[in-house]
Amino acid sequence: MGTCSADLAALLGPNATAIAAADYICNKFSDASFAVDNTYLLFSAYLNFFMQLGFAMLCAGSVRSKNAISVMLTNVLDAAIAGLFYYLFGFAFAFGSPSNGGFIGRHNFGLESIPSSSFDYSNFLYHWAFAVSAAGIASGSMAERTQFVAYLIYSSFLTGFVYPVVSHWFWATDGWATAFRVDNGFLFGSGVIDFAGSGVVHMVGGVAGLWGALIEGPRIGRFDSSGRSVALRDHNATLVVLGTFILWFGWYGFNPGSFNKISGFYTSGNHYGQWSAVGRTAVTTTLAGCTSALTTLFGKWILTSHWDVTDFCSGLLGGFAAITAGCSVVEPWAAIICGFVAALVLISCNKLAEKVKYDDPLGAAQLHGGCGAWGVIFTALFASEKYVREVYPSRPVRYGLFMGGGGRLLAAHIIQILVIVGWVSATMGTLFYFLHKFGHLRVSADDEMADMDLTRQGRLAYVDHDEDESQKQGFK
Amino acid sequence: MGTCSADLAALLGPNATAIAAADYICNKFSDASFAVDNTYLLFSAYLNFFMQLGFAMLCAGSVRSKNAISVMLTNVLDAAIAGLFYYLFGFAFAFGSPSNGGFIGRHNFGLESIPSSSFDYSNFLYHWAFAVSAAGIASGSMAERTQFVAYLIYSSFLTGFVYPVVSHWFWATDGWATAFRVDNGFLFGSGVIDFAGSGVVHMVGGVAGLWGALIEGPRIGRFDSSGRSVALRDHNATLVVLGTFILWFGWYGFNPGSFNKISGFYTSGNHYGQWSAVGRTAVTTTLAGCTSALTTLFGKWILTSHWDVTDFCSGLLGGFAAITAGCSVVEPWAAIICGFVAALVLISCNKLAEKVKYDDPLGAAQLHGGCGAWGVIFTALFASEKYVREVYPSRPVRYGLFMGGGGRLLAAHIIQILVIVGWVSATMGTLFYFLHKFGHLRVSADDEMADMDLTRQGRLAYVDHDEDESQKQGFK
Amino acid sequence: MGTCSADLAALLGPNATAIAAADYICNKFSDASFAVDNTYLLFSAYLNFFMQLGFAMLCAGSVRSKNAISVMLTNVLDAAIAGLFYYLFGFAFAFGSPSNGGFIGRHNFGLESIPSSSFDYSNFLYHWAFAVSAAGIASGSMAERTQFVAYLIYSSFLTGFVYPVVSHWFWATDGWATAFRVDNGFLFGSGVIDFAGSGVVHMVGGVAGLWGALIEGPRIGRFDSSGRSVALRDHNATLVVLGTFILWFGWYGFNPGSFNKISGFYTSGNHYGQWSAVGRTAVTTTLAGCTSALTTLFGKWILTSHWDVTDFCSGLLGGFAAITAGCSVVEPWAAIICGFVAALVLISCNKLAEKVKYDDPLGAAQLHGGCGAWGVIFTALFASEKYVREVYPSRPVRYGLFMGGGGRLLAAHIIQILVIVGWVSATMGTLFYFLHKFGHLRVSADDEMADMDLTRQGRLAYVDHDEDESQKQGFK
Repeated sequence: MGTCSADLAALLGPNATAIAAADYICNKFSDASFAVDNTYLLFSAYLNFFMQLGFAMLCAGSVRSKNAISVMLTNVLDAAIAGLFYYLFGFAFAFGSPSNGGFIGRHNFGLESIPSSSFDYSNFLYHWAFAVSAAGIASGSMAERTQFVAYLIYSSFLTGFVYPVVSHWFWATDGWATAFRVDNGFLFGSGVIDFAGSGVVHMVGGVAGLWGALIEGPRIGRFDSSGRSVALRDHNATLVVLGTFILWFGWYGFNPGSFNKISGFYTSGNHYGQWSAVGRTAVTTTLAGCTSALTTLFGKWILTSHWDVTDFCSGLLGGFAAITAGCSVVEPWAAIICGFVAALVLISCNKLAEKVKYDDPLGAAQLHGGCGAWGVIFTALFASEKYVREVYPSRPVRYGLFMGGGGRLLAAHIIQILVIVGWVSATMGTLFYFLHKFGHLRVSADDEMADMDLTRQGRLAYVDHDEDESQKQGFK
Repeated sequence: MGTCSADLAALLGPNATAIAAADYICNKFSDASFAVDNTYLLFSAYLNFFMQLGFAMLCAGSVRSKNAISVMLTNVLDAAIAGLFYYLFGFAFAFGSPSNGGFIGRHNFGLESIPSSSFDYSNFLYHWAFAVSAAGIASGSMAERTQFVAYLIYSSFLTGFVYPVVSHWFWATDGWATAFRVDNGFLFGSGVIDFAGSGVVHMVGGVAGLWGALIEGPRIGRFDSSGRSVALRDHNATLVVLGTFILWFGWYGFNPGSFNKISGFYTSGNHYGQWSAVGRTAVTTTLAGCTSALTTLFGKWILTSHWDVTDFCSGLLGGFAAITAGCSVVEPWAAIICGFVAALVLISCNKLAEKVKYDDPLGAAQLHGGCGAWGVIFTALFASEKYVREVYPSRPVRYGLFMGGGGRLLAAHIIQILVIVGWVSATMGTLFYFLHKFGHLRVSADDEMADMDLTRQGRLAYVDHDEDESQKQGFK
Repeated sequence: MGTCSADLAALLGPNATAIAAADYICNKFSDASFAVDNTYLLFSAYLNFFMQLGFAMLCAGSVRSKNAISVMLTNVLDAAIAGLFYYLFGFAFAFGSPSNGGFIGRHNFGLESIPSSSFDYSNFLYHWAFAVSAAGIASGSMAERTQFVAYLIYSSFLTGFVYPVVSHWFWATDGWATAFRVDNGFLFGSGVIDFAGSGVVHMVGGVAGLWGALIEGPRIGRFDSSGRSVALRDHNATLVVLGTFILWFGWYGFNPGSFNKISGFYTSGNHYGQWSAVGRTAVTTTLAGCTSALTTLFGKWILTSHWDVTDFCSGLLGGFAAITAGCSVVEPWAAIICGFVAALVLISCNKLAEKVKYDDPLGAAQLHGGCGAWGVIFTALFASEKYVREVYPSRPVRYGLFMGGGGRLLAAHIIQILVIVGWVSATMGTLFYFLHKFGHLRVSADDEMADMDLTRQGRLAYVDHDEDESQKQGFK
């Protein structure tokens, strides 16, 4: 500080120039902002990444114990494959501006020219974790019956291309559907407000999983010969709770972290700024999740007369998936509505899935696809004018229909849903179709009936009988 | 930064007014402080919330496996119920100043007028996690024999009313017993220093649990026909370790986070400031926990000749519960004393509980109630004058008896213990009494003897035999 | 802010002195830097500490279930013992400058005179977590056959003396081999760049474990009568994945946290600063881990035709251990090379260990020792001039051989490896030798054949048959 004082005193002194003093001071301010914004974004990215452990534990707990290793392997693989592919070209496709007509980025391959004035390494890390999530969602839908080689292929394709392109459209400053575009002729002069990705991440993962699960068909035994549904019960509720809470924890990186920066006043000289919006986003996320969890728990109790902690867990996650799009631009009370409806959407989607004999071991398509779509609609209904102005300052203000903002945002959001469903179906659906056609998607019936962990991974997740223990009597 | 420089240069230039320049510069400083303080508080809140997963895993590992689902359901419910109730009125009761005579807050229901100059959304989130903790503690005491409907009722009442009122008394700036009151006629001209809640959170949870467990009585089989204690063994030590370490991790949000802000010099122009106090708080927390864990481990080894990792775990948590009140105002060496005595308190409380046939599956009343009470006393003995001046700058300085500060703080802290025990007994004790009287507290003996997870939740936590696996031979 | 404006306006006004104004402004800047740097360091320390849970879960999942409690007890003990010993003298030995001739620090025992202008409590907390890691690594190598008293002794010695001395040499500003020394006659005018401790932490832990495991010999049954290797299979792959991901999460504290500060421009008035380097470090860490994980997975598939999630996990950790030394000074593309080679090193070390009948239940010596040593070499080959100048600004610039920096750094790094192996062998090797000689190292064969958890800890980690459940039929 001694240096600072001496330097600055010279600049402020009698021979000083105002410009040099101002430069000196402003440079220091800039330093503080970069430091705090990057601290905030990096730790958000760490939390965001940690969600992948949540997915792994949730999946391991939700499948039959014989398949726990297989399903965890797919989750850990997603993180590693995305690490390489998103580094090599995913990030470039998503944010490498200027892009090809708003469709796909084309700079920054292998993080070339990063850090730039727009992006630092922390941004890459943050968005890598999003790409991993999209892939993690899809692998849940296809658990317990998918070939390992199919995972390798679709995970690379999804994290390296399909997802980055979608995120470019809706999140990059020059994406064709972005909320940052000042004049958006494509979308009724509006743009899409999908703040943290109910559509961009959750629907992408959910729709991809839907096609995979549809094309390979239900697990053997999931529906009996007369077509009735048979629960293939999850094997470990403790792991389900563990995974769910880790996801909850990580969602505080996912949603409030999506501001990327935490500094900046909204009302100068007051207490109100970007930090308040970040905090509010954490609050709306919490309230939507809690409401949806309780609604699902009570709803399922009404339907089945049982209180089930896994209903609570899936309800919670459905609420989170739904609030993700609008978390930054809605009031806390609206988040409660969001969560309540998300629970109804989730229960209905699950009912529907059973009726049409769609088998998704994690219910991922229903939860991330269904509740994600509701979240996109919800935002178009409840986004508040004030918050939209603050969070997206340069855009033409379109806000929620029920908040007096008219129907343009809703129209744009319906387009978003159609576009995401279309794009993911065209890419991932086609991929799964050809994988299936050439026999690379589903494991053989023998393998599926046997212990998949044993046949493919060469061992079981849990070994209860130790070599030297099996000789002994008395325990176990 | 270009804008900053240009703007500021104009203000510093020949035609400048000092006030405008000062405003401009100070506004920027304020921005940096808000950004860093909120970053610190939000991530502390996330850690704090994550403790609930610690409680869930600790509980799941500490009960018999047949009850793992039930007990986890109560833990997850606490978080969700508190989410809604603390939002609707808990936060208002706790911090809605000006309050009704220092007894209960009456503003900010449903977060109305938040953010204000005193509170931002991050404060709400942070205190919500505290409310969840209090409820989580109580549910441990009552595990394995309590009706689900009783959980719903007492958890709502505790997080929505009983706990918020206590936190108002001791933490809100206008609470009747707060350390921030300049002149406190009620409490010997002192005020209570319960920095992060050994009394406000841990004793509240512990005393609530004590009444619940006392009124419903011990689990069937916990004491045999001749009255001897029979260990109903915890089923999974790995989950106990997992839960304990998550709690340890989260306690770094709980204790150091309770400063709410991390910026601000104590000695201007030096390196010493609020950040040092925050760091010191993390250090005292660590040392108290470690000392208590080792003391408990060795103490139990002397008593039983076995080294038991769960003794280590409960000792650790007892040390944390004890240091929580004084963590910010005592020297690191004093924290070691705190932890050492906490272990003795814990072992004694557990012995006593066994003698009087009090059955608490998690030992929560002993750990959070007993060690929490010791923590309140400890603070009154060892609070250092220097640190109290820094952490509570505006209050009349009362500090530790053994540090030369006289007995007024101790007297105030003894009152705190009595008041908390009285208030929680009057509210929660009464509630449990009536729940019991009307048959809504304890499950039937049949249900308790049977698999509770099966009868109430409709399934077991662990399914070892898969449908298609049971036909096979050779494995498992 | 009102106060700030009024105060500053007076200082900038007509009667102002430039020095007073500059002091005022600079003091505020200093406040912001301290606040953000400590926030960043404290949360990095929390993550860093959280790794210990990762080790505990990884160990618990990697040993036979009968030993899960024992091995977890050693992990939790490490954290607590290090808490006290590192507080009492470890930190003083490591960073108590001025030191005894660069060999060992001799100030700040019991954190006396902390905070100082060099260190705050957050630095202590951060380095305590490193000490715990070193001990945790060693306990993995010696799992399933070591006496509890031996753990107590070596863990104290390692965290209180052996590790702190090494960290003094390479990390303290006046250590004899530090990169901060302007003129280092000992090391070819160079200094060692071991940024986050591939050598200082991982090799120390790995070599200590190697000696322990070598001296006590393989577990009974690990090699059959004809000398062939028999896999003593890990009992729970879910715990392995859980532990590994927690370690991954924590490594973002370990590596990017090692900057200790996040504020400070590298290119003034630009966007590029210490925060970019911190972010880049997180990216290199991620890429090295991912590459190593995938390489190990595919490599083992080529060797065994099985896809095994635990191969992925150990590969990942090997990549992390290797990149730790150079994470801050290499390009992202170089991190991919680092990870690729780390996987080959790991597979080779494991092959070699089997050949020489070295039994390390966690493979810790191979992973942390072998990959750690590769990381030290790698840094000397790939450290970039630009990054070394930024991260170690005052040192004479020696950078990677392959980056055109000549061989001096490589020579210094080879010396580092020899010195660490020598020092740890001389201290820990001797300790283990005498413990073994006097019968305090290895448990009896009877105890080892029996359930170790049962004989020493008095119970098993998992209780499957509850008292009242065993009477029932039908379910487990």
